[in-house]
Amino acid sequence: MNQIDAEIIAIGSELLVGGRSDSNSLFLADELGKIGIAVRFKSVVGDERQDIVTAIHTAVKRAHVIIMTGGLGPTVDDCTREAVAYATGHRLGRRKDALAGMTTRLAQWGRTPSTAQLRQALIPSGATVLKNPVGSAPGFCLTWKKTLIVSLPGVPREMEEMMRQEVLPVLRAASESSGRPQRAPIVRQVFHTFGLPEADIDAKLKGLIPSRAPVDLGLLASPMGVLVSLTTKANQFAPEKNRDLLQKLADDVRSRLGDWLFAEGRETMEEIVGRELIKRRLMLAVAESCTGGLIGHRLTQVAGSSAYVDRGAVCYSNRAKTEMLGVSAELIAQKGAVSMEVAAAMARGIRERANVSVGLSVTGIAGPGGGTETKPVGLVYVGLDDGTDQPIAREFRFHGDRNVIKQRSSQAALDLLRRWLLSKAVK
Amino acid sequence: MNQIDAEIIAIGSELLVGGRSDSNSLFLADELGKIGIAVRFKSVVGDERQDIVTAIHTAVKRAHVIIMTGGLGPTVDDCTREAVAYATGHRLGRRKDALAGMTTRLAQWGRTPSTAQLRQALIPSGATVLKNPVGSAPGFCLTWKKTLIVSLPGVPREMEEMMRQEVLPVLRAASESSGRPQRAPIVRQVFHTFGLPEADIDAKLKGLIPSRAPVDLGLLASPMGVLVSLTTKANQFAPEKNRDLLQKLADDVRSRLGDWLFAEGRETMEEIVGRELIKRRLMLAVAESCTGGLIGHRLTQVAGSSAYVDRGAVCYSNRAKTEMLGVSAELIAQKGAVSMEVAAAMARGIRERANVSVGLSVTGIAGPGGGTETKPVGLVYVGLDDGTDQPIAREFRFHGDRNVIKQRSSQAALDLLRRWLLSKAVK
Repeated sequence: MNQIDAEIIAIGSELLVGGRSDSNSLFLADELGKIGIAVRFKSVVGDERQDIVTAIHTAVKRAHVIIMTGGLGPTVDDCTREAVAYATGHRLGRRKDALAGMTTRLAQWGRTPSTAQLRQALIPSGATVLKNPVGSAPGFCLTWKKTLIVSLPGVPREMEEMMRQEVLPVLRAASESSGRPQRAPIVRQVFHTFGLPEADIDAKLKGLIPSRAPVDLGLLASPMGVLVSLTTKANQFAPEKNRDLLQKLADDVRSRLGDWLFAEGRETMEEIVGRELIKRRLMLAVAESCTGGLIGHRLTQVAGSSAYVDRGAVCYSNRAKTEMLGVSAELIAQKGAVSMEVAAAMARGIRERANVSVGLSVTGIAGPGGGTETKPVGLVYVGLDDGTDQPIAREFRFHGDRNVIKQRSSQAALDLLRRWLLSKAVK
Repeated sequence: MNQIDAEIIAIGSELLVGGRSDSNSLFLADELGKIGIAVRFKSVVGDERQDIVTAIHTAVKRAHVIIMTGGLGPTVDDCTREAVAYATGHRLGRRKDALAGMTTRLAQWGRTPSTAQLRQALIPSGATVLKNPVGSAPGFCLTWKKTLIVSLPGVPREMEEMMRQEVLPVLRAASESSGRPQRAPIVRQVFHTFGLPEADIDAKLKGLIPSRAPVDLGLLASPMGVLVSLTTKANQFAPEKNRDLLQKLADDVRSRLGDWLFAEGRETMEEIVGRELIKRRLMLAVAESCTGGLIGHRLTQVAGSSAYVDRGAVCYSNRAKTEMLGVSAELIAQKGAVSMEVAAAMARGIRERANVSVGLSVTGIAGPGGGTETKPVGLVYVGLDDGTDQPIAREFRFHGDRNVIKQRSSQAALDLLRRWLLSKAVK
């Protein structure tokens, strides 16, 4: 069998019912992918020995590597050790090397192991102890029915260090000594679009992937736009070929998506906009109504944004629009606070008052109240003023709850700014 | 068998390798818990038909209810419909009721179903169609081998509405007609604190839970504070007794936490602050520097916040602090933009300019750059001015990355406002 599949089992009742989601598996899937091991299943179980045993037995049938996280703490509800021993028919015993590592670690903090912590040195017979360079709980791994079972603590920093220092080298070595050709890493490339619905993006990408090409195309819609991903399939044995194919497909995606594509990989809209502002040495000021400060918040999530963000005005009341931006009360009375004209006047007002190159504005109805027949919830105008006689304003009709409408509105405003920036020459 | 166990299967390759974690299951576990159904397993699988089939077959053996989310979209990688049909030996066919619901919904947006979207009306024979009141993809449910299999879209809003309107009523009815003694709901009560580290909260709650009481105590630290939870154990059959015990413990938690406790349940700091502002008929204006608009954004996440939020000023540059708030350039030069004095002057400035009852301000160094030895990254001042001669200002030294420092700063400012509000009589 050529294929190495992994399953991740996250253990902890708080992950089942505690309103907390497992994030360790994101790191693990990433790291395993880099060495060509595909995660095909993830499971979450509570701190119940029998349920953990069931999860192990299920996973052994379908995965070659099982990475378990959690349940290695000192309290009685931490029962991963017992579950692994029971599931695989091994005995639990206190192991010198496990105890030594723990004692050394605790000594650094001026502590000695408590009775409860001594439980952490219990390891199934035949298992290899995995050192914990960060915390007190050791991990372990053992091979059972040809599956490598790895047990790591649930604390993210401990799990990550142990994975890097103890587990990945073993997996790499196993892969190298297997005599099998080296697997290509699973590569994933991500493209962010805004402004087109998922179905339209889907139509643009129709026929992109040649049949039987070892690449999957993914689409994922969110209030921030549609995310497009290309992922190489696992268990390919020609890294260069994969890379070339992916590069070709990525170029094709770019040309098909055109300027609907605003960012790639981990980049965000606010980073892109910041970079383009810096390139053109422009200062920005923002006037927000329905987004309430969200655009300012997003822009200032980027380190160094003080170089191009001068200020923002959150004008929730009409009076604030007049006092902070000089939007005339007559205009508001005549056209309504949510109108193309007011959006343009807000953008002009903040630009002039801040004395900067470009002003960006949003006004709209985020709901759930405040909508009328002619101006329903979700009606949003974004405006941009660059000091020329042609302010830009755009109308949007968004669906969703208050938060979704705010998110989309902020994205629409930043996207308008991005498109305007790209139309301007770099100084 | 007395116990009803549920398994949640989240479908989507982006949840396996895409760096995105499944959050739908948190909502689902909560809602199922309320009607006494315990989630014992969660699984995540990619968009591979065979893997989904495997997950269904595994789940059917151990759960009485399976809730699947995702994979119901219009694209070819959406294969939950096919997987359920295949796994349970049913045929897929286009269903009139499914098509009708979708067509009606799309018509509201002025669209007609595309060829791709027609796939969404394919439903396994014998299944009941579940209406989607929010989006286009219908869901479905069917009983197979005594297990109820429910398939819902992965879009959170759609999944939540369909769960509430279509699935929970069915589960409740099934539970009532089963003739089994009614299970006590798994009740979880949550308390939100801000301002004390986890170890201090832990110390305050020591000895809270009597031994063998069917209640678990949980603590969870985040930038927004420490969350305390009390959760009754599953499969208890004495609702009244549980309820009484929980109420007693909750009262004890409240008295131990005192005014470090700012909210309970799903309530947020911004909702609490809004409620207290309304009670006192006060209008608020905010001046933000390092938070960049986050406080305004949070305040306006609450529907109806225009009743008490007048405006916000995001003063990222020193010039903006002077021009928008009247903070004197001399004061900034003398004390620094990040200082107790400037925080107080900002709060006063925004209150006066907005002519409202209370002004709130934040200035600080969010990092990663901009720190010095005397004013390190994480140094934050929050200010409050109520028009008396005694403006309030507080210093904080936060740890964490830029985002964490912004989040904590916004929470610290809102908490200052909350404490001030509670000290004022209700008019």
